[in-house]
Amino acid sequence: MTVGEEMHALVRRLYPICRSITGDGVRRTLEIIAESIPLEVSEVPTGTQVLDWTVPQEWNIRDAYVKDAEGRRVIDFNASNLHVVGYSVPVSATMTLDELRGHLHTLPGQPGLVPYRTSYYVPTWGFCLSQETLDRMGPGPYEVVIDSTLADGHLTYGEYVVPGETADEVIVSCHTCHPSLANDNLAGIAVAVALARRLAERGPRHTYRFLFMPGTIGAITWLARNRERVDRIKHGLVLACAGDGGTLTYKRSRRGDAKIDRVAAHVLRDRPHTILDFSPYGYDERQFGSPGFNLPVGGLTRTTYAGYPEYHTSGDNPDFVLPEAMADTLDTLDEIVRILDTDRHYLNLSPYGEPQLGRRGLYGSLGGRSDTKQAQMAMLWVLNLSDGEHCLLDIAQRSALPFATVADAARALVSAGLLKEK
Amino acid sequence: MTVGEEMHALVRRLYPICRSITGDGVRRTLEIIAESIPLEVSEVPTGTQVLDWTVPQEWNIRDAYVKDAEGRRVIDFNASNLHVVGYSVPVSATMTLDELRGHLHTLPGQPGLVPYRTSYYVPTWGFCLSQETLDRMGPGPYEVVIDSTLADGHLTYGEYVVPGETADEVIVSCHTCHPSLANDNLAGIAVAVALARRLAERGPRHTYRFLFMPGTIGAITWLARNRERVDRIKHGLVLACAGDGGTLTYKRSRRGDAKIDRVAAHVLRDRPHTILDFSPYGYDERQFGSPGFNLPVGGLTRTTYAGYPEYHTSGDNPDFVLPEAMADTLDTLDEIVRILDTDRHYLNLSPYGEPQLGRRGLYGSLGGRSDTKQAQMAMLWVLNLSDGEHCLLDIAQRSALPFATVADAARALVSAGLLKEK
Amino acid sequence: MTVGEEMHALVRRLYPICRSITGDGVRRTLEIIAESIPLEVSEVPTGTQVLDWTVPQEWNIRDAYVKDAEGRRVIDFNASNLHVVGYSVPVSATMTLDELRGHLHTLPGQPGLVPYRTSYYVPTWGFCLSQETLDRMGPGPYEVVIDSTLADGHLTYGEYVVPGETADEVIVSCHTCHPSLANDNLAGIAVAVALARRLAERGPRHTYRFLFMPGTIGAITWLARNRERVDRIKHGLVLACAGDGGTLTYKRSRRGDAKIDRVAAHVLRDRPHTILDFSPYGYDERQFGSPGFNLPVGGLTRTTYAGYPEYHTSGDNPDFVLPEAMADTLDTLDEIVRILDTDRHYLNLSPYGEPQLGRRGLYGSLGGRSDTKQAQMAMLWVLNLSDGEHCLLDIAQRSALPFATVADAARALVSAGLLKEK
Repeated sequence: MTVGEEMHALVRRLYPICRSITGDGVRRTLEIIAESIPLEVSEVPTGTQVLDWTVPQEWNIRDAYVKDAEGRRVIDFNASNLHVVGYSVPVSATMTLDELRGHLHTLPGQPGLVPYRTSYYVPTWGFCLSQETLDRMGPGPYEVVIDSTLADGHLTYGEYVVPGETADEVIVSCHTCHPSLANDNLAGIAVAVALARRLAERGPRHTYRFLFMPGTIGAITWLARNRERVDRIKHGLVLACAGDGGTLTYKRSRRGDAKIDRVAAHVLRDRPHTILDFSPYGYDERQFGSPGFNLPVGGLTRTTYAGYPEYHTSGDNPDFVLPEAMADTLDTLDEIVRILDTDRHYLNLSPYGEPQLGRRGLYGSLGGRSDTKQAQMAMLWVLNLSDGEHCLLDIAQRSALPFATVADAARALVSAGLLKEK
Repeated sequence: MTVGEEMHALVRRLYPICRSITGDGVRRTLEIIAESIPLEVSEVPTGTQVLDWTVPQEWNIRDAYVKDAEGRRVIDFNASNLHVVGYSVPVSATMTLDELRGHLHTLPGQPGLVPYRTSYYVPTWGFCLSQETLDRMGPGPYEVVIDSTLADGHLTYGEYVVPGETADEVIVSCHTCHPSLANDNLAGIAVAVALARRLAERGPRHTYRFLFMPGTIGAITWLARNRERVDRIKHGLVLACAGDGGTLTYKRSRRGDAKIDRVAAHVLRDRPHTILDFSPYGYDERQFGSPGFNLPVGGLTRTTYAGYPEYHTSGDNPDFVLPEAMADTLDTLDEIVRILDTDRHYLNLSPYGEPQLGRRGLYGSLGGRSDTKQAQMAMLWVLNLSDGEHCLLDIAQRSALPFATVADAARALVSAGLLKEK
Repeated sequence: MTVGEEMHALVRRLYPICRSITGDGVRRTLEIIAESIPLEVSEVPTGTQVLDWTVPQEWNIRDAYVKDAEGRRVIDFNASNLHVVGYSVPVSATMTLDELRGHLHTLPGQPGLVPYRTSYYVPTWGFCLSQETLDRMGPGPYEVVIDSTLADGHLTYGEYVVPGETADEVIVSCHTCHPSLANDNLAGIAVAVALARRLAERGPRHTYRFLFMPGTIGAITWLARNRERVDRIKHGLVLACAGDGGTLTYKRSRRGDAKIDRVAAHVLRDRPHTILDFSPYGYDERQFGSPGFNLPVGGLTRTTYAGYPEYHTSGDNPDFVLPEAMADTLDTLDEIVRILDTDRHYLNLSPYGEPQLGRRGLYGSLGGRSDTKQAQMAMLWVLNLSDGEHCLLDIAQRSALPFATVADAARALVSAGLLKEK
C-alpha cells in the first residue's frame, strides 16, 4: 500500500463518525489517530474561560429523523450525519411541512447535495437535506425527532510532540470538528499523521507539535492554556483541504514575510500553486494570527477554503479525495519541513577572494569549459553569500538553485574547512 | 438646481472678469465668492518682500484695441480679455502691421483660437488673437491702444477657514489669476466653494483652510506670511481644471507617500483615473512642495495641466466645463475629505484570539455557510489589524473593502467595547 | 583612422601572441600596451602566497605538434596557439591515435572549431583540434611533441594610474591571460587602452586605475598585494568581450545597488541592453565581489560570458570583433565615467518656494505657454530635489531628463548663487 493509499484508508475509516466541536465523535476520532501516533488527549470542562470565550456544553447525538405518515425516514441521520444541524437541541414533535420548513436547510443551486450547517452558540435545531428531497416532500404531517444531548462535559483535543534537537517549535494544526466531510478535514488529519510518523522516524531538528483540535474554540482553548509558552513557536502551518484534485495553495502568515512564508514560497516555486495573502478568515491561522499572538503560522491547502463547489456539502466525500493528491501534499510538507530544519547561516572562513577549490578536490581541473556544473556553482554561491547575512534559503533564492544542492554544497565546504556554522 | 448647475452658474458669472495676479478683477472675483462663503481678504502692498520674490505693481486695465483705418476694432479687449497680454504696459500709437507684428501672439496650429499670454515681470505689451484674424489683417496703419495702469497697489488674496475639532489643517488651494479661462481655473474655484459650504454645514474634524490666490506669487506671498505656521498643515490639495470632460488626475505630493497621496489613490481606485508623480511644474503644489516647506500637498485636476488642446486658449470657455464633471470632482473631493477626517488608529482590546462576536450580536449565528457578509469581514479585519500600527485606511487597502464599510465596522466594535481609539 | 579602427588594429596585433596566466606572452602583450599608455609592470615570483592561492610556476612554450608518419603536422601550435592545452607539461613521444585520444579535445557540436582549454593547477598535457581534423586522423602512430617549460618564474601584470583630483579610485580591470581569442579579451584590452588615453588627456576627477592581469590568479594576486588599500576603490568595472556585434550587458556588482550599478543602468537606459544580477561566476568581478572585499565593481561586456557560440573557440578571432562595436563600448564607458566624475549632491540655497529665476535671466519671461524648455525643467528639478538627499543622478532619474542637461542646470544655478555643492 502506498502512503497515499494508507492516508486514504484513514480518511475512509474516519468518515462516518459524527464529529462536532465537542463530544464522543471527536474522542473516537482521536482514538483512531492514536493507533498511528501516540496522542496526548486533553479534556477541558464546560464553562472554562478561554480567552474571550467559554467552553460550551458537550453535544452528543444518537439518532435523528423526519418520518412521514407511512413511517419512512424521509431524512435520516443514519444515512449521513450532515442531515442534522450541528449542536441541534433535542426535538420530538409532529409537524407539517410548513411548520418544519424554517428548520430545513437546502442548497437550491446544488439540488442533489446536502449542506453542512451548525449552530454552536445559539440554541436551535434543524435538518439539512437536498433540494431534490425537499421537493418530493408532501405537506405532512411528519414525526420529527432529534435524539441529542447538550450537557456539561468537555472539549477534547489531541497533541503529539516529536521532540527535536532544539526546543524551538514548529506547529502543524488541523481541525477535527467536521462530521462527514472528507477533504475538509479528514485529508488534513491523515496527512498530518503521516508527516508526524516520518518526523518521528528521522528525528528532526526542531520540535514538532501536531495539534488535532476543533476549529476556532479548539485553537482558542489551546492558546489560552499555552499562552505563556507560545513564544516557543518559531514556525507553523494550519493544514486543511489536503486531498482534493486541485493545486496547492499557501496562505501567508499575518506577518507576511515570516520564514515559513519564504520557505513555503520556495518549495511551491517548482510546483503549480497559488499564494494568498493573510486574511482573518478561513481556518485557525486567524487565531494564531490574532494581533496579540501574531504567530508565524501560515495555511496550507490544496483548493482553498470555500473554493470548490463540494465545500461544506455531501459532495465532499471520500471519492472527492485522491490518494495521490494527499501524497503530493505530504511531499510538499516534508520538503518545507526539511528546509526549516536544514536552513541556517554559515560564515565563509576564506572570504577574501575565492578560495582555491581545485586544490581541495572541490572543483573540476580543466579550465576553459563553460558548462560548470550545478554543484560547483552552488559552492561558489555559498562561499560568496556566507557573510553572516544570508541563510541557505537566501542563497537558493538568489542563485535559483535547488535548496538541497545549496545545502549539499555547504556541507562539502564545511568538510573542507572553508565554512562554519554562524 | 443641482449642485453641478450651481457651480456652473458661478463659472459663467466669473468668466467675463479680467483677472490677473493683482488688480480689481481679482477683488471683484473674491467679492462674488464672498457671497457664498465668508472670505477673509488680504491686501499685500507692492514692494513687499515675499521669500525670494517682491510683490509687483498692481495692474489694471480699462480698455484696449487695435483699430483699423475705418475705425473698426480688429482686436477688442471688450470682446475677450484674452486679447491683451496680461500686465501689458500702456500703449497709444499708430503703427503698421509690420511694426505691430512683434507684439501679436497667435496659435498657428489652432488658427481659430486666441492664446492666453502674460508678462508679469518683464515690462512689455502685446495682443493675442486668432491666426485667422491675423491672416485677414491688412498692412495698416492701425491705432493701437492699451489703456492700462501699472502702479503701486496691492496683491489680493482670500481665505476661508472652516474650523474643525482639531487645529490640524487641511488646505485646499486654487489660483484666481486667470482671466476668461473657465476650466483653468473658475471650475476649481467653484468646486472649492461648494466643498467649503458642505464642510461648514457638517462641521469637520480637521480645520479646513480654503485659499483663493494668484498662482505662484500668491502662493509665495501666503507662504511668506505664514511661514512659521505651515506646520499646522497636515494635508493639502491644489485644485484646478476641475470641470472638463476628462477623467480625474491626482498628482502626488513631493513626499510621494503622504497620507493625502494614499487617501487620494484609495478614493480614485474605484473611478477611471490617472496618478502622476510629483514634478516641480504645474500649479502651486510646486511652491508647497519646494524643499524648504515640503508640505504634503497633492494636486487634483480632471485632465491635467496643459493636457487638453483648449488649455490656455479661448477654447477654455464655459461650454468646455460640464456641470456633471464638476459634481464628480466635488464628490471625489468630499470622499477624500471624509476619509481624512475619519481615518485613525484603533486598538483591539481583546487581541488574543478572535473575540466572540456572536455573543455580542455582531455575527451571524449559523455556521458552515461560506457567504460571510462584507460587514462581518470588515469587523474581522479591523480586529486583526488594530494593533496600533494600522489605520482604517491601511485596513481598507489590505482587505480591499470600502473605507466606509471598514469605518462602520470600527464604530460597531467601539460600541461593543472591543476597540478603542489609539 | 577612427578610434574603432585603431582599437581593431591593436586586437589584430595582439592576437597571434600565446598568452597564459604567466609567461613571455603576457610580457609581450604588456609591452605592446605600453606603447600606448605608460604601464607599471609587476613581476610576482612563483611560490608567493596570495590570499588562499600560491603563484604557480611560469609556463612558456616554443613549439608543439602531432606529426604523422609522413612527417606532416596534423596538429600544429604554429597554426594556432589554441591547439595546445594551456600549461601543458612537456611531451615527446610516439603514440597511436588510441593512446593519444585521451589528450585530445574537440567540440563535436561545432565540428569546424578548435576549443580553448587549460589546466593550470593539475599537471597534464593535451591538444585541442577541430572534430573534422580528428575525424580525418588515421590510427597512427604519431610523433607527439610539446616543447614547453614549467619552471619557477613570475606572474606578470600591468597597471596604469590616471591621477585625478581626488584619491578616490575607479578601477577598470581586464584579463590578459587568453591566447588567440579576440573578443575575449583583446577587445576589452583595446577599449581599456583607448579609455585610459582619453582620461589622461582630459584629467578626470576620480583617480582611474587600469589593471591588465591574468584572470582569477591575477586579480587574487593584485588584491593580496593591495589588501590594505582597496578602500580607495569607490567604483569599478571588469571589462571583457567588448567587441562582438551583440548589445551591451551590464552585470551588477555584488552590492546590487552601488553607485556604479545605478550609473551603468542610467547610461544603458537609452541603448538596447541587458542588465544581469551579480553571480559569483564569470570574470574577476567574482574576486572583487568576494564577501571579504565586497567592492562595488560591476561587469561590462557586449554579449555576456559564454553567451555566444564562438566563445572559447577558434571562432573568436579578429573577424568576430567589430570596430564600431568597440567604439560603442568605449562611448558607453566614457559616459559612465563622465557621470561618475560629475555626479554630486548640491544644496538649494533658496529652498522656501521657488526662487525667481526670471529675475536672474534663467527663465523665459513670457507666461502662459506650456512648452517649457528642457533646460528650464532641469533647473526646476535641480532646485526642487537639491535638499541634500538627492544627487544629480537621482534627479536625472526622477525627472527622466538626460544627466548632462541636469548637470548643466546645476552649473547654471551655482553661477546664479542659488545652489552650492554639499
